[in-house]
Amino acid sequence: MTKKFIKLKSEDLSEWYNDLVVKAELADYAPVKGCMVIRPYGYAIWERIQSFMDKFIKEKGVQNAYFPLFIPESFLKKEKEHVAGFAPELAIVTIGGGQELTEKLIVRPTSETIMYEMYKKWTQSWRDLPVMMNQWCNVVRWEQRTYLFLRTTEFLWQEGHCAHATDQENQEMVQWALNLYKKTYSDLLAMYGVTGIKSETEKFGGASKTYTIEVLMPNGKALQAGTSHDLGQNFAKSFDWSLQDQNGDKLYPYQNSWGLSTRSIGGLIMVHGDDNGLVFPPQIAPTQLVIVPIPGHEKAIKLANSIFDQLKSKYRSQIDDLAGETAGFKFNKWEMKGVPIRLEIGDKEADIDSAVVVRRDTLEKQTVKIADLEKTIDQLLIDIQSNLLEKHQKFTQDNTFSVDSYDEFKKIMSTTRGFISAHWCESADCEAKIKEETKATTRCLPDGQKDEAGVCIHCGQPSKHRWLFAQSY
Amino acid sequence: MTKKFIKLKSEDLSEWYNDLVVKAELADYAPVKGCMVIRPYGYAIWERIQSFMDKFIKEKGVQNAYFPLFIPESFLKKEKEHVAGFAPELAIVTIGGGQELTEKLIVRPTSETIMYEMYKKWTQSWRDLPVMMNQWCNVVRWEQRTYLFLRTTEFLWQEGHCAHATDQENQEMVQWALNLYKKTYSDLLAMYGVTGIKSETEKFGGASKTYTIEVLMPNGKALQAGTSHDLGQNFAKSFDWSLQDQNGDKLYPYQNSWGLSTRSIGGLIMVHGDDNGLVFPPQIAPTQLVIVPIPGHEKAIKLANSIFDQLKSKYRSQIDDLAGETAGFKFNKWEMKGVPIRLEIGDKEADIDSAVVVRRDTLEKQTVKIADLEKTIDQLLIDIQSNLLEKHQKFTQDNTFSVDSYDEFKKIMSTTRGFISAHWCESADCEAKIKEETKATTRCLPDGQKDEAGVCIHCGQPSKHRWLFAQSY
Repeated sequence: MTKKFIKLKSEDLSEWYNDLVVKAELADYAPVKGCMVIRPYGYAIWERIQSFMDKFIKEKGVQNAYFPLFIPESFLKKEKEHVAGFAPELAIVTIGGGQELTEKLIVRPTSETIMYEMYKKWTQSWRDLPVMMNQWCNVVRWEQRTYLFLRTTEFLWQEGHCAHATDQENQEMVQWALNLYKKTYSDLLAMYGVTGIKSETEKFGGASKTYTIEVLMPNGKALQAGTSHDLGQNFAKSFDWSLQDQNGDKLYPYQNSWGLSTRSIGGLIMVHGDDNGLVFPPQIAPTQLVIVPIPGHEKAIKLANSIFDQLKSKYRSQIDDLAGETAGFKFNKWEMKGVPIRLEIGDKEADIDSAVVVRRDTLEKQTVKIADLEKTIDQLLIDIQSNLLEKHQKFTQDNTFSVDSYDEFKKIMSTTRGFISAHWCESADCEAKIKEETKATTRCLPDGQKDEAGVCIHCGQPSKHRWLFAQSY
Repeated sequence: MTKKFIKLKSEDLSEWYNDLVVKAELADYAPVKGCMVIRPYGYAIWERIQSFMDKFIKEKGVQNAYFPLFIPESFLKKEKEHVAGFAPELAIVTIGGGQELTEKLIVRPTSETIMYEMYKKWTQSWRDLPVMMNQWCNVVRWEQRTYLFLRTTEFLWQEGHCAHATDQENQEMVQWALNLYKKTYSDLLAMYGVTGIKSETEKFGGASKTYTIEVLMPNGKALQAGTSHDLGQNFAKSFDWSLQDQNGDKLYPYQNSWGLSTRSIGGLIMVHGDDNGLVFPPQIAPTQLVIVPIPGHEKAIKLANSIFDQLKSKYRSQIDDLAGETAGFKFNKWEMKGVPIRLEIGDKEADIDSAVVVRRDTLEKQTVKIADLEKTIDQLLIDIQSNLLEKHQKFTQDNTFSVDSYDEFKKIMSTTRGFISAHWCESADCEAKIKEETKATTRCLPDGQKDEAGVCIHCGQPSKHRWLFAQSY
């Protein structure tokens, strides 16, 4: 039955994903290579992520602003590691207003350079700190192959950029942003992520330290789902941005930047979806509840409409009472769309003032009296949200392996994959060889990882703690 | 006193505007030619415009979505008049991912072409209509000279794009959008605008008809403040987008597009500001109320803080109790920032449980008992909003001249300027000559303009009705 709609997740994750994103009308391939169109059903998810995060961002005192799309080529070159990291991915404007430009303009891949040039202009002394700004915008990083939401040339994100008088405030902000991401994933998207620090090789170009949240996908690959960068004084020094401190001495501000993108929607789809389609946690679901009266059942259609009128102000609800589709087709369609709760009402139910309530995550059904509907729905919305988070947390834990032999490491990475917790000597050389031989990269040194004497899984040299490895998206 | 802060509106509007926008920290010039940075105080205004309009857009059933920034050059060329209109203003990406592109990519100046290509892909029959989408995004139209908010290479806007099965629905939507703009200006921004239809010369490239809202600025020039385009079947035919209608016949959808941009913020500043700085209508003001205790007055500072705690959840409020600035400096600063209501509290006021309440629009002061504060503030917020709208409406009416002699037309346009209501034969030739000789263009044929036999102000040929002329921003 469901095969009519989509390919099966259990057979081929990648095909299922591409098929589902398009068929559920979340997004589509744009006629421009590497780009996507975010359709209303997908964009509604991004709007919910925005409003969830924006509230916390504002409460923290970070202010929204908007900086230009175009960055002069010379700006990007001011921080050496930064430009090296982005050079291969740039889209470049060379013609403007019919003329060849004297200085090429980079379509922003991220906005550190243009923002900090302005911060420098706007500040004179320590009194002007902290500067704390965020923007919701589009960025461009050139990609050859499109993977809807997960890897596209243009994507949407927020980028927060703060500058502080002390490193302590800076560190506090870096952790605040990382926690915001963790909260967004767990409380809104019902996704479990491991937070930690990136290796020197994997950190952001120009950062002192990069913190990340890594989310395990059903195929055992890790999705880098949000990053918070401690930039130290690197950019301030590259931009020669110094202020007078309280003693009249020179102060280079301590900076951080942090971003979360529409990529999160790709993770959401992957993690919770099943063979029947999308499964949305109630908190993020654009539609939380759909009411489907059985076509042709007049009494049921009337009852369904009165229930819809009663519930629509409380839950994000829809009613599907259009003719022309069978009940079975409708049920499958709404399952594919991932709506958390479905009410099925036929004349049989209407006769006993009841509805069949189906939860999307487990597909369990129960017949509920109309009078008890709200109570049942309230509880189900909570249960589905927590069930999905628990399920993903369990999946992540079940697929995190503490490994001390390189043979076992290789075997896991060539079969089931997953997170591997293993000792590593922290040399870039071993890291590169492990990647070459297993496709696994260091994902992070997890927060709270205990010191533990050991030897590097690859070279046998002493190691202080276990790192988390995985193949990455 | 105020000269310390800004130049005077009464002396030079343009200098006053540029100075004020930067000093009040609404926006700043970007290091990229033609671009601006929207600073938090300015962006907060845009966020309020967005949330005001987005509610109505969603209620109408128009869905938000996101389409790519880049448009293949070949797409833009599909509608002849459309590409002709935009060709001189394009920013073009020629390099991506380190390689010269085989097809150049246009940075969207507007999104008709890329959106309708997708609409075509997503629809098969009349059942799939209407398609009603909107996006909030950035667009780029190359400019040599920056006028903050009013004319910048990159700006932010919303663009709505709907496609309908009948022209009647299409026309209804075109008017709905125009009315949304009128409502946004009057109810939120306290600005009066004249709505009407554009001449053939002034309409949007590719449109059948363009409807506009024109707002008169203090220097007697008109700002095109929002447009709603009836695209007819022009784009559908250019894109060969046809569907099956109810009888199985070929149907080219009727389309419309409509946009309002950050340019509106420029108009807001111009219209209401005065020699002391910004004047924000309460509905749009990022801060509605500022409480300023006199520095050093301990009892007043304590009272001010308790009032702030009491009012901050009800009004968008700030307290300015920092040391280091005189009371006079603070008053001037908040006047420059345009905050609608200021409470001044010294020990003298504290002793009698009162505050001095100053309204920004008239600078009138009154001493109010703390117990009566909320009542007074509630009324003032209403009064200031309506006073500003009435004032602008009166200004517009006072500067709209019904003119029947070309000498008088020329005289007005070379002195006070303003709207001129004059007969015009509707030939593009006369329109061009009037523009050449007076710098005035046709702004619109106002809604509800009565038929009236007359003769063209320029050539003396018969004319059916008066058009509105003005010099434009």
